Amino acid sequence: MNFEMTEDQKAFAETAKQFADQELAPNAAKWDADHYFPIEAIQKAGELGFCGLYTPESEGGLGLSRLDSSIIFEQLSMGCTTTTAMLTIHNMATWMIATWGTTEVKSEWMESLVAGEKIASYCLTEPGSGSDAASLRTSAKKNDKGYLLNGSKVFISGAGATQVLVVMARTGEAGPGGVSAFVVPADAEGIEYGKAEEKMGWNAQPTRMITFDNVQVDNTALLGNEGEGFKFAMQGLDGGRVNIATCSIGTAQQALNTAQAYMQERSQFGKPLASFQALQFKLADMATELVAARQMVRLAANKVDNNHADKSTYCAMAKRFATDVGFEVCNQALQIHGGYGYIKEYPLERHVRDVRVHQILEGTNEIMRVIIGRRLVSSDTEIL
Amino acid sequence: MNFEMTEDQKAFAETAKQFADQELAPNAAKWDADHYFPIEAIQKAGELGFCGLYTPESEGGLGLSRLDSSIIFEQLSMGCTTTTAMLTIHNMATWMIATWGTTEVKSEWMESLVAGEKIASYCLTEPGSGSDAASLRTSAKKNDKGYLLNGSKVFISGAGATQVLVVMARTGEAGPGGVSAFVVPADAEGIEYGKAEEKMGWNAQPTRMITFDNVQVDNTALLGNEGEGFKFAMQGLDGGRVNIATCSIGTAQQALNTAQAYMQERSQFGKPLASFQALQFKLADMATELVAARQMVRLAANKVDNNHADKSTYCAMAKRFATDVGFEVCNQALQIHGGYGYIKEYPLERHVRDVRVHQILEGTNEIMRVIIGRRLVSSDTEIL
Amino acid sequence: MNFEMTEDQKAFAETAKQFADQELAPNAAKWDADHYFPIEAIQKAGELGFCGLYTPESEGGLGLSRLDSSIIFEQLSMGCTTTTAMLTIHNMATWMIATWGTTEVKSEWMESLVAGEKIASYCLTEPGSGSDAASLRTSAKKNDKGYLLNGSKVFISGAGATQVLVVMARTGEAGPGGVSAFVVPADAEGIEYGKAEEKMGWNAQPTRMITFDNVQVDNTALLGNEGEGFKFAMQGLDGGRVNIATCSIGTAQQALNTAQAYMQERSQFGKPLASFQALQFKLADMATELVAARQMVRLAANKVDNNHADKSTYCAMAKRFATDVGFEVCNQALQIHGGYGYIKEYPLERHVRDVRVHQILEGTNEIMRVIIGRRLVSSDTEIL
Amino acid sequence: MNFEMTEDQKAFAETAKQFADQELAPNAAKWDADHYFPIEAIQKAGELGFCGLYTPESEGGLGLSRLDSSIIFEQLSMGCTTTTAMLTIHNMATWMIATWGTTEVKSEWMESLVAGEKIASYCLTEPGSGSDAASLRTSAKKNDKGYLLNGSKVFISGAGATQVLVVMARTGEAGPGGVSAFVVPADAEGIEYGKAEEKMGWNAQPTRMITFDNVQVDNTALLGNEGEGFKFAMQGLDGGRVNIATCSIGTAQQALNTAQAYMQERSQFGKPLASFQALQFKLADMATELVAARQMVRLAANKVDNNHADKSTYCAMAKRFATDVGFEVCNQALQIHGGYGYIKEYPLERHVRDVRVHQILEGTNEIMRVIIGRRLVSSDTEIL
Repeated sequence: MNFEMTEDQKAFAETAKQFADQELAPNAAKWDADHYFPIEAIQKAGELGFCGLYTPESEGGLGLSRLDSSIIFEQLSMGCTTTTAMLTIHNMATWMIATWGTTEVKSEWMESLVAGEKIASYCLTEPGSGSDAASLRTSAKKNDKGYLLNGSKVFISGAGATQVLVVMARTGEAGPGGVSAFVVPADAEGIEYGKAEEKMGWNAQPTRMITFDNVQVDNTALLGNEGEGFKFAMQGLDGGRVNIATCSIGTAQQALNTAQAYMQERSQFGKPLASFQALQFKLADMATELVAARQMVRLAANKVDNNHADKSTYCAMAKRFATDVGFEVCNQALQIHGGYGYIKEYPLERHVRDVRVHQILEGTNEIMRVIIGRRLVSSDTEIL
Repeated sequence: MNFEMTEDQKAFAETAKQFADQELAPNAAKWDADHYFPIEAIQKAGELGFCGLYTPESEGGLGLSRLDSSIIFEQLSMGCTTTTAMLTIHNMATWMIATWGTTEVKSEWMESLVAGEKIASYCLTEPGSGSDAASLRTSAKKNDKGYLLNGSKVFISGAGATQVLVVMARTGEAGPGGVSAFVVPADAEGIEYGKAEEKMGWNAQPTRMITFDNVQVDNTALLGNEGEGFKFAMQGLDGGRVNIATCSIGTAQQALNTAQAYMQERSQFGKPLASFQALQFKLADMATELVAARQMVRLAANKVDNNHADKSTYCAMAKRFATDVGFEVCNQALQIHGGYGYIKEYPLERHVRDVRVHQILEGTNEIMRVIIGRRLVSSDTEIL
Repeated sequence: MNFEMTEDQKAFAETAKQFADQELAPNAAKWDADHYFPIEAIQKAGELGFCGLYTPESEGGLGLSRLDSSIIFEQLSMGCTTTTAMLTIHNMATWMIATWGTTEVKSEWMESLVAGEKIASYCLTEPGSGSDAASLRTSAKKNDKGYLLNGSKVFISGAGATQVLVVMARTGEAGPGGVSAFVVPADAEGIEYGKAEEKMGWNAQPTRMITFDNVQVDNTALLGNEGEGFKFAMQGLDGGRVNIATCSIGTAQQALNTAQAYMQERSQFGKPLASFQALQFKLADMATELVAARQMVRLAANKVDNNHADKSTYCAMAKRFATDVGFEVCNQALQIHGGYGYIKEYPLERHVRDVRVHQILEGTNEIMRVIIGRRLVSSDTEIL
Repeated sequence: MNFEMTEDQKAFAETAKQFADQELAPNAAKWDADHYFPIEAIQKAGELGFCGLYTPESEGGLGLSRLDSSIIFEQLSMGCTTTTAMLTIHNMATWMIATWGTTEVKSEWMESLVAGEKIASYCLTEPGSGSDAASLRTSAKKNDKGYLLNGSKVFISGAGATQVLVVMARTGEAGPGGVSAFVVPADAEGIEYGKAEEKMGWNAQPTRMITFDNVQVDNTALLGNEGEGFKFAMQGLDGGRVNIATCSIGTAQQALNTAQAYMQERSQFGKPLASFQALQFKLADMATELVAARQMVRLAANKVDNNHADKSTYCAMAKRFATDVGFEVCNQALQIHGGYGYIKEYPLERHVRDVRVHQILEGTNEIMRVIIGRRLVSSDTEIL
């Protein structure tokens, strides 16, 4: 057991930090205000390998572990939560294509996806189904040209600005066993994009409904085999939960650092804020919870890397814990800033708005508790 | 001891509810999106007496108690948090002028203030002093025409759109004893308004810095006597804290009602949300905390009405408790809505953004704890 | 609406406070250590009317409201939590007999119960049923002499030291409609008492299992009519929940007072504890939560007095909230005392042990949430 | 970075688990009830090396790391919290003697201490000084025979039943620089032991005041040099905090396991407790917090092993977080058991009583926040 980063990990973190400081942090407030999707920043991230972090080297990626990737994403999210979250989605979709895609699909897309020249969205959630992925209704009917897709997806990050869609659709019976996964060009005929949702945060990426109206794909679009889609989705979710939890702790660390500096600069009643014991205690608890959250995220990432039998439980725990802590730390950092925390001249209210959705995405934190609770009541073994 | 509303209180609440349902609720989302200050709505509120609720009848107000007023504001805030909060500030400033204003000032302003034709802002906070009101630096120098005001105020609600300013300024020595209060026309020469602050919420009212550059007022502008300003401010704060706490519980009740209805309509995994025990428990805790918060607010209002020796402590307790509960209830109602809670099509994320500032305004909740704690450690008596 | 005590209520509170200070507080620690049931103290309480607080005057009681009674019990519990809790159970059972008892039963027991010369226990819970009262199995079979009782009850407060038992038993079909209530002499043939349970706290009263083995009672033992027992139990529970919640806030007030005084006396690092801001904040939050809890208890008592349609919901809310707050306040008061909080020379650890069971008794706080949640999801109206 | 136990660590854990299951768990309730100090169990632990876990091999210990030791203590505390806590104190004192003791002292005590034949107590806290160790007043005056000790110590674990005392006493000026550490035979002339404190828990070890009345030790009794005592104490505290935090998580894991099994066995309303979603959620949160707490403890142990610059901050974080989580998990496990959680037939109430003191010992959790907060406000660097 060893809790220190390797030299490689330190180097990756440093590179990511520089990128975050130079390319993300200075623009994040403006992207939020303008609802601007920073394609160029994603491409620059691609130049550093950040668009294919855990995509195998054989497919052009960096072939890193989930733990390495989490260390990098954490640094990036200190610069811009929303852009980093989009990057994690792109990384997941890219990894799915690299892992289960046909030769045809890979040769068409992998190079540009890994380079960040093309961006991928992930299409799972449907209007009626929030967290109940197994009940999805989008259909993929086999025909002589391949598959014909019909249905709709909601809350799709990046939709309308990305080039590739990984789409879960039903090829078979009801339930998880009837779901398959497809790679679909974002501009395929029959795809329509809804208006960009007005959201509380995550404004640096568009979120839209997507409607599939007789969208034809050929057989090479299928990932793996028919009926494996739900399994892929679940594997994707384990990593997706680690990633979104990572974005929470990176943002929270940034908020904590801001509050730590503010308390040392700002005075009230003739004394620096830093000298008030109750504020020191608040800061102490924020830091403590955050260190715990980071450990949970790294532990879960490591369990995914090791394909541990309880990996999904660890990912659910990390997602629940770290996104709750992330929100709370950002919210307390806002509070420490008083009125200045509430205005957009300071980054705190943006951090709060951005991380709030992490408690909902990739399965709400209530669903996380369902997963963890079910594991506990259906077994007599410990989770260690 | 009696916890039921009187018939009069029920009638006031009903009138306020109708107004909220018809004039506020249908427009609140749009006012937020457009950053629009609804002057007409405030004037219509004035027609019902809502602009002078606890202004004495002798000055044209309704002469209600703080408890009656809280019952009314609670209903109004269910329609629009921000507009109601502005109304409470206007009510406080109007009450101050009615209570301590000179005959000249009252004859000039009272009628239109009570009617809601003119609106008042309250100018206490300064750039360097957040919660430390006693250290304010805006000066009011006596001269032969009256007083010459210089200095600046920040986070002034309504600034730039209101007609009257109640301004705390220093006429004497350092500390609370040197502060006086003035009624200043908002368009007086030498007043400059900063840009509207970009805020997380409270978007249906402008918040601006105000700079006073040699602003001349005559002697009739003084409220009460020189040196009484801080005392007035403290009395104002007691009521202001009850009011802002009221806006939190009204908004939270609205959010709770929305979540209660949503859980009965919406299904997941083939069952209504209402049937999931963990969500029922969440809703139960939200309702319980909210009932407690409402009691705290009404208790504190009653203590102000009775001029109880511990009234300031009760107001601090009510403000701390109810604004924390208000935020938490709104935030959990958002969570119950999942992804729909995060988008602007639903009101939840707005409720969260609007009530967030109540934990900061009128003395942060940390300052409330200072007030309560000081009372406890400097005495051996109970707060009962 | 009015939140001040009447002169009568103040007088009752004062009498109760004196009794608590003189008869309970000086002995509470010893009774706990010795596991001693203070029958004489209960009899002295009876002399003051505290054994029939809300028993009608026509039956020899004081005929007070539940709100009045709560004010009195609160003061008593500041002297000894456990003895007061036993008194509340006795008051409930006595009230049940006064309300639904036959003339024969009342003439036999009422006078001595109201005087505190005889004490009553309440027998509802069974080994297999905990919070699920409607499924109880103790049977009362009609025969020519009256009813024959068989079965067992657990966690019966006072069992073995009391003279009267109010027993819920099944006279009819499964479910709530088949339950009836009986008054049974504690020394009736066929009743056996288990060993006194070793408990975490509540040591000043014995808790035992009771077994009924062909216990014969005559027809006059029946309270009301056959099949009404569950209804009586539910009515009893509403009041019982207010009472136990009251014992939590009285104990918590006592713990808070102790901590408030300790902070003013004790120094660390050369300064009084009272001067540490973080401890002031802790004390402030304890006091705030406690004031809120007291309001909840009194509100619920008032709703029972007014027979409000939502009275059971209010009682569940008050019980949940006040017993949680009561535990937390006692536990924090212990923490403020450091090592001294953990030893029996100081009362804090006893307070913690005693109030802990209030979160479990009279329906666990989870059951309270079931009650509140069910009310919310089965209706579209607010709880106001 | 690697989160899996090594084969060696697994083997140690397994040995410790067997010992806990066979020698501690079956007796823990009885030791608590009888206030019995299980010397034989400690000796058996010594046979396995558990009395000198991180004492260097050169001094007869196992020479393990703090992380290894934490893994072992965690397993032991699952069997008996109090005995394991005593073992951790003994290990700390033994390590201090091994590290800084004179040849004479080591040759006299080391062998029997490592074997568990003799047991050591640690004497730091004084009546007036709780958490403020630097202000201690026990004096050690240099004389021609060595040092003469006068003063008193409170809350000394094991006092009266142990053979060796490590005593902090003042040899020089006020403040930390004047403190030295001594090894004193527990039966030295002039040492008097107070009565065993009656405590809430930790009953399987006596806690007493110790008075030193002209206790003469010779020069070889000094650990290290004069004036180094406070430094040793602080180093001891780092490890002591990891150890006590470890005892909290082991006990909590035991409580969680008990609740997990109970929920699967016990039914209410005709369904197993395990099927109630709200209880599943409670169990899920308990498990999640516990996994986080374990990570914090191991991280801190590792930082001590690596002599990390922020090791004291990490230890304070781990102690604060893990002892709070430990208490909460035990307390919730009690709640899940309902009435059975409150009686001594089940272990839950004992777990709650035992871990409660961990939030106070080795510096209260408020002192932990002082340490963490001070680190944050006196530096601009992150704690990573």
